[in-house]
Amino acid sequence: MKKYLVINGVNLNMLGIREPGIYGKSTLADLEEMVTEKARELGVEVDFLQSNFEGEIVEKIHGAMGVYDGIIINPGAFTHYSYAIRDAFGSVKMKVIEVHISNIHKREEFRHTSVIVPECIGQICGLGFKGYVLALEALADA
Amino acid sequence: MKKYLVINGVNLNMLGIREPGIYGKSTLADLEEMVTEKARELGVEVDFLQSNFEGEIVEKIHGAMGVYDGIIINPGAFTHYSYAIRDAFGSVKMKVIEVHISNIHKREEFRHTSVIVPECIGQICGLGFKGYVLALEALADA
Amino acid sequence: MKKYLVINGVNLNMLGIREPGIYGKSTLADLEEMVTEKARELGVEVDFLQSNFEGEIVEKIHGAMGVYDGIIINPGAFTHYSYAIRDAFGSVKMKVIEVHISNIHKREEFRHTSVIVPECIGQICGLGFKGYVLALEALADA
Amino acid sequence: MKKYLVINGVNLNMLGIREPGIYGKSTLADLEEMVTEKARELGVEVDFLQSNFEGEIVEKIHGAMGVYDGIIINPGAFTHYSYAIRDAFGSVKMKVIEVHISNIHKREEFRHTSVIVPECIGQICGLGFKGYVLALEALADA
Amino acid sequence: MKKYLVINGVNLNMLGIREPGIYGKSTLADLEEMVTEKARELGVEVDFLQSNFEGEIVEKIHGAMGVYDGIIINPGAFTHYSYAIRDAFGSVKMKVIEVHISNIHKREEFRHTSVIVPECIGQICGLGFKGYVLALEALADA
Amino acid sequence: MKKYLVINGVNLNMLGIREPGIYGKSTLADLEEMVTEKARELGVEVDFLQSNFEGEIVEKIHGAMGVYDGIIINPGAFTHYSYAIRDAFGSVKMKVIEVHISNIHKREEFRHTSVIVPECIGQICGLGFKGYVLALEALADA
Amino acid sequence: MKKYLVINGVNLNMLGIREPGIYGKSTLADLEEMVTEKARELGVEVDFLQSNFEGEIVEKIHGAMGVYDGIIINPGAFTHYSYAIRDAFGSVKMKVIEVHISNIHKREEFRHTSVIVPECIGQICGLGFKGYVLALEALADA
Amino acid sequence: MKKYLVINGVNLNMLGIREPGIYGKSTLADLEEMVTEKARELGVEVDFLQSNFEGEIVEKIHGAMGVYDGIIINPGAFTHYSYAIRDAFGSVKMKVIEVHISNIHKREEFRHTSVIVPECIGQICGLGFKGYVLALEALADA
Amino acid sequence: MKKYLVINGVNLNMLGIREPGIYGKSTLADLEEMVTEKARELGVEVDFLQSNFEGEIVEKIHGAMGVYDGIIINPGAFTHYSYAIRDAFGSVKMKVIEVHISNIHKREEFRHTSVIVPECIGQICGLGFKGYVLALEALADA
Amino acid sequence: MKKYLVINGVNLNMLGIREPGIYGKSTLADLEEMVTEKARELGVEVDFLQSNFEGEIVEKIHGAMGVYDGIIINPGAFTHYSYAIRDAFGSVKMKVIEVHISNIHKREEFRHTSVIVPECIGQICGLGFKGYVLALEALADA
Amino acid sequence: MKKYLVINGVNLNMLGIREPGIYGKSTLADLEEMVTEKARELGVEVDFLQSNFEGEIVEKIHGAMGVYDGIIINPGAFTHYSYAIRDAFGSVKMKVIEVHISNIHKREEFRHTSVIVPECIGQICGLGFKGYVLALEALADA
Amino acid sequence: MKKYLVINGVNLNMLGIREPGIYGKSTLADLEEMVTEKARELGVEVDFLQSNFEGEIVEKIHGAMGVYDGIIINPGAFTHYSYAIRDAFGSVKMKVIEVHISNIHKREEFRHTSVIVPECIGQICGLGFKGYVLALEALADA
Repeated sequence: MKKYLVINGVNLNMLGIREPGIYGKSTLADLEEMVTEKARELGVEVDFLQSNFEGEIVEKIHGAMGVYDGIIINPGAFTHYSYAIRDAFGSVKMKVIEVHISNIHKREEFRHTSVIVPECIGQICGLGFKGYVLALEALADA
Repeated sequence: MKKYLVINGVNLNMLGIREPGIYGKSTLADLEEMVTEKARELGVEVDFLQSNFEGEIVEKIHGAMGVYDGIIINPGAFTHYSYAIRDAFGSVKMKVIEVHISNIHKREEFRHTSVIVPECIGQICGLGFKGYVLALEALADA
Repeated sequence: MKKYLVINGVNLNMLGIREPGIYGKSTLADLEEMVTEKARELGVEVDFLQSNFEGEIVEKIHGAMGVYDGIIINPGAFTHYSYAIRDAFGSVKMKVIEVHISNIHKREEFRHTSVIVPECIGQICGLGFKGYVLALEALADA
Repeated sequence: MKKYLVINGVNLNMLGIREPGIYGKSTLADLEEMVTEKARELGVEVDFLQSNFEGEIVEKIHGAMGVYDGIIINPGAFTHYSYAIRDAFGSVKMKVIEVHISNIHKREEFRHTSVIVPECIGQICGLGFKGYVLALEALADA
Repeated sequence: MKKYLVINGVNLNMLGIREPGIYGKSTLADLEEMVTEKARELGVEVDFLQSNFEGEIVEKIHGAMGVYDGIIINPGAFTHYSYAIRDAFGSVKMKVIEVHISNIHKREEFRHTSVIVPECIGQICGLGFKGYVLALEALADA
Repeated sequence: MKKYLVINGVNLNMLGIREPGIYGKSTLADLEEMVTEKARELGVEVDFLQSNFEGEIVEKIHGAMGVYDGIIINPGAFTHYSYAIRDAFGSVKMKVIEVHISNIHKREEFRHTSVIVPECIGQICGLGFKGYVLALEALADA
Repeated sequence: MKKYLVINGVNLNMLGIREPGIYGKSTLADLEEMVTEKARELGVEVDFLQSNFEGEIVEKIHGAMGVYDGIIINPGAFTHYSYAIRDAFGSVKMKVIEVHISNIHKREEFRHTSVIVPECIGQICGLGFKGYVLALEALADA
Repeated sequence: MKKYLVINGVNLNMLGIREPGIYGKSTLADLEEMVTEKARELGVEVDFLQSNFEGEIVEKIHGAMGVYDGIIINPGAFTHYSYAIRDAFGSVKMKVIEVHISNIHKREEFRHTSVIVPECIGQICGLGFKGYVLALEALADA
Repeated sequence: MKKYLVINGVNLNMLGIREPGIYGKSTLADLEEMVTEKARELGVEVDFLQSNFEGEIVEKIHGAMGVYDGIIINPGAFTHYSYAIRDAFGSVKMKVIEVHISNIHKREEFRHTSVIVPECIGQICGLGFKGYVLALEALADA
Repeated sequence: MKKYLVINGVNLNMLGIREPGIYGKSTLADLEEMVTEKARELGVEVDFLQSNFEGEIVEKIHGAMGVYDGIIINPGAFTHYSYAIRDAFGSVKMKVIEVHISNIHKREEFRHTSVIVPECIGQICGLGFKGYVLALEALADA
Repeated sequence: MKKYLVINGVNLNMLGIREPGIYGKSTLADLEEMVTEKARELGVEVDFLQSNFEGEIVEKIHGAMGVYDGIIINPGAFTHYSYAIRDAFGSVKMKVIEVHISNIHKREEFRHTSVIVPECIGQICGLGFKGYVLALEALADA
Repeated sequence: MKKYLVINGVNLNMLGIREPGIYGKSTLADLEEMVTEKARELGVEVDFLQSNFEGEIVEKIHGAMGVYDGIIINPGAFTHYSYAIRDAFGSVKMKVIEVHISNIHKREEFRHTSVIVPECIGQICGLGFKGYVLALEALADA
């Protein structure tokens, strides 16, 4: 059975609390349940990590090699400067999809680009929690 | 029954011919078939437009208001400069998802940004033809 | 009798529909009527073109040489990238005034400049439909 | 009876003297006469200020609140750096139109932008003295 | 008894009038009273200058050498371009604290930096009128 | 017999009319005749397209694959922003030479670069109509 | 009784050791004592955190919601790149004041800006340890 | 007898006081005496203006036309932003030499350029008070 | 006996695994052995740290003061943004050499610069594992 | 008989040796032979200079005035920074064509522009050795 | 007797020939004669070097240490890129004045700055040949 | 026996004279002796070139192919602009190490980057003369 890892980066434990105007009231637990349900439907397994420590995410990625068939990551604020996470993906050479709940390309400012996406196969943004579900579907299908 | 419009912009009629190293050998017809199949599965209707004329795409968008429940667009090279298409979306205020077959964020250069995405709800890129299917799923689900 | 051409560029057929919060509810027909009335008052003739095709506008400009005594243009989104329209004006060497309904200089961002205005004698912006009327007055007076 | 203030900024007392190749031989007095005549025609009152001191213009703007129904300003060289005048307009919240005798957008260089225009309702440039007259018409009409 | 000078730059005479949404309804007189009270409490003397003329502020700074033990300045819009005020501080070599009522670093744009602060010992911003009081405390304490 | 396509982009139908100071008085017909004569001399065939529509040029390029042995293009103002034409060349993978009548590198400004030339084998500029003739010679010789 | 949290970021445990030429010989303990004394004087409570781990600071901020009435932070080097800390403040929506011991605006270079300050109500810099005391006063007063 | 005007801009009344490490201990009076002596030697007349008000300098320049045979100006901090002074020189079309006591090109930063020098015939910098004397010699010789 | 610390930053535990095309197949253990051997030869002692946590590296540097005679660091991806590590070096004022296995200056892009190197005495890059050995030699020799 | 000078700049003596993957195996001698042959065909004379010294090229250009009817130059790496060669052409005011063997506009980076081309009548690039031959033809024809 | 060296850089042997519209018809010999005459008047000695080779100028500067009391240099086009000449001045630590015949600050473009001037005591530009004479006077006077 | 070439670029003959504060009092002869000694120790041969002429360095590099097993270069000021030297290395495809005596990355300014290093295998900087010795060791070891 195929196995996938879903990583939520810094501050994403605050989902449903943080700026509810933007992200709605659903929590991280709601999100993980929604993804788990899709996994069942697709007949795949899925594990979760939420961490506010860049180093912990990096080491989880190192350990993912040979264990998981793909990774879904929402790096949170790490998106904009964590070359460490980017290089971690560069070292394990796995299938990775970057997901963002809101449309990070809405504003044309520099900080809204991602330094991690060049090491991913693709990116989904602006589609809410649904983005994670679609990413899982894409990985399972590939 | 819900109805969606899929717009393929400039040069996308060359799919399967153009740089097969990057996009594979499947054609635009293959792509449209794949999306149609998904539409059937979701119980929605889907129409297609491929055009190499910016003006034709703009007018199709104008006419979509009140006819379609959402739009999926791969603007092709228009992505990088067509403020006209962007403003067309601004005027009709519909749900739009931008799709790119390859990961346009791979290279950090300026030209790989989109001037259209700020008027979309989100973007999917790097997931091949599958990206269109996921976009349809996201629209149908919204 | 002097004769003038009023060109409305891309998406301006959506006036009154597009972002009514910014532009109000008056339509392109209302605008043209308002300008026609002023023309009568000034004892000049006025023709109109609205097009979403850059090429059509370019060719209309080519044909205006020797036919019209001046041109009023609101290029819409073409303002920001159509070097083609700019060069068309460069080739016919007529009196041109660029008009914008809203104040395009409100935001300091790059995209809000015009690439066309260097080939015009002047620009009026932020004065609503009235801007077209004033432009006509200026041309008729020159 | 409605009352308007026309402010001419730094160096504009040199009109008719300064670079006659660009601005012609008419003087500031000619300009003010032309505007006064239009005011009579429109049935409005108009006052004038020309000053080479930024502080004097700022204080005139402060005093204009509740006295005038609108302001026409040609800031001269202050256009390019006087955040003081811009903020003065921000504080009185009146209807202001910026006028320039020549087309300041002709050259694409940075210095030819205006730091004041974001606090104005609009801008007229390149139409010579006529620009002031049209601005008065626009204010009186609003 | 120690003696301090508080300088309020351009447009700050409009406090309580200017954009009350941002700065509240208290006036410059209220502000000066609040600072005077604190001075009494600290057993120091305090003088005030508000001017909309850069030159007047410059000359006041020149005259402050040997008279005052420190200066508090809110340059208003001069913050962004008055190298003259900056150099005036450079020439008198006194203790200066720059104060801003609102948080000028809120927006990341270039114009929100200060060209004067490099010649100050520090800056307080975003703390309302209270910022002046704290600055006085800091100077009196130094 | 080898066969080549010569594409003249936007505004080039105005040759001989447009800014005669720069380009001389010869027309597009003169240019095509000059190229045709050279073709005869080289024993090759040559077809011509002039269009002011980006979309029409794109589709002509699509249709050129397998029909022509090479393309000469003077994109006119499209040079500076038509990523659509660039990608069209990317899709057909033919031998293309970009020609400009005047020396577009004369001024160091950004807009005088070409976004199309990276998909061409080379560029000739500043040599007048002669540039087309030399391009044909180069293609026929390759 | 009101309760405040004082966060000292990376390397600030080295105070009194690190570059004594700039920051003097007082240590972090001295600083905390000075702030505690002020707290007693103001009748408020104050807790301290010093951490060299961005993740630890982020989680402390998450936990501060509903526990503290405000936060004083000197992010140290995190000032220049920790979008994670910035977003943590964005999620808890508390009153935060950023403090820097030295005047970070002294040099005009890019790195001396703060990416965190847009989520704070204000900033105090250049006033040494005194800056923390003033920040506490401002929070207690608000 | 030929007549020249020497203008010293903002803060230059502080010469000998301001940053004596850079400019030495000589005062503005010493400087004017030194220039007067040279004038006697050359058989020309010389007048002086020092002002901290941009507007006063502008008006002095306006009044110089037809009265003086040339102007020597050290704009002080106005060098870096006074487009008003620059345009004043543009309007009177006199022979102007810009002088700086220190070498303003020492540091490569943007602010060390002059916005005024394009309207001067030349510039002398880094040669101390001697620079004024040489400028007078150059004007008298021309 | 002199004692040195060798720090390997984020992802360097993946050496021999990560992008073997660039770095070869030797592991971190191989590298440490190679450096240890050189230490024996030079008659010095050497300790090692590899960490994926910026905070851990910072604290190790704090603790190195008075314990080690110098530090060799390959910061990995931290090179490009860790002002925290840079300031840690600033606070301990030790002899530090930055080492990179590959030539980070190969590509001219911004991200390939180091924010840490200004606090080091020098840098060695592009010489593979040998770079560490040479750095040790340089420190031991100093 | 007309006479032309062909200048090959720095490193071009390495043709056929240098990066044969890009430039092929033909040598500078082959190139000169090919151009000589064309000269014979056109009934013109041609001289050659290859130099790795900027100064030698500059002096050859000085000496060319009145001797040659035109110059063909491939500056090699001097293309990107030799304002000396550019100004040399500015001083002799001869007909010059810049030639590059490969398409220097392929990559969009800054360094691939030419600082010399503004003083040339035109440029040919990407057409291999053939480019020199076409340039000679263009000069002979002019 | 004091002794000075006057260096004229690349292309300055073409004076009187090169762009006579800008520099007049006087030659390098005229210039040297004019400076020699002034030297006689001042009772100092003067030597001259004109070279089109950067290396030759560098070595002449090296040899000037201990031989000359100061250097006057017009680097010609080397002004804009010769860090070699700049560093040569850095190494000999002599009094150097940079001279330009025309006003190089006329245009605001980047290339018109000097990379050499930071190692000079000052600069004179725009005063024609007279600039050299004034520079000699300044050196002799120092 | 392996043979290496050590190239010292412009101004490096001034070592021990030039800015002794930065580089110490040792001369170029001292440096060459130090490297020769190391060569003896490693059992390799070493030749030296110091030149202030870019062209001479370029030609020495051309001649090095097949003669030397590697090159050590300190380009001096050529580091910052000599694309000629860079391309010379590109043409001979030898092992090259760039050495700088001081840490050129200390200051973040643009000019402190190297245009040559992309064609080298690596770079050593900031380690004084020792850097050359280590470079030789690295080459001999490779």
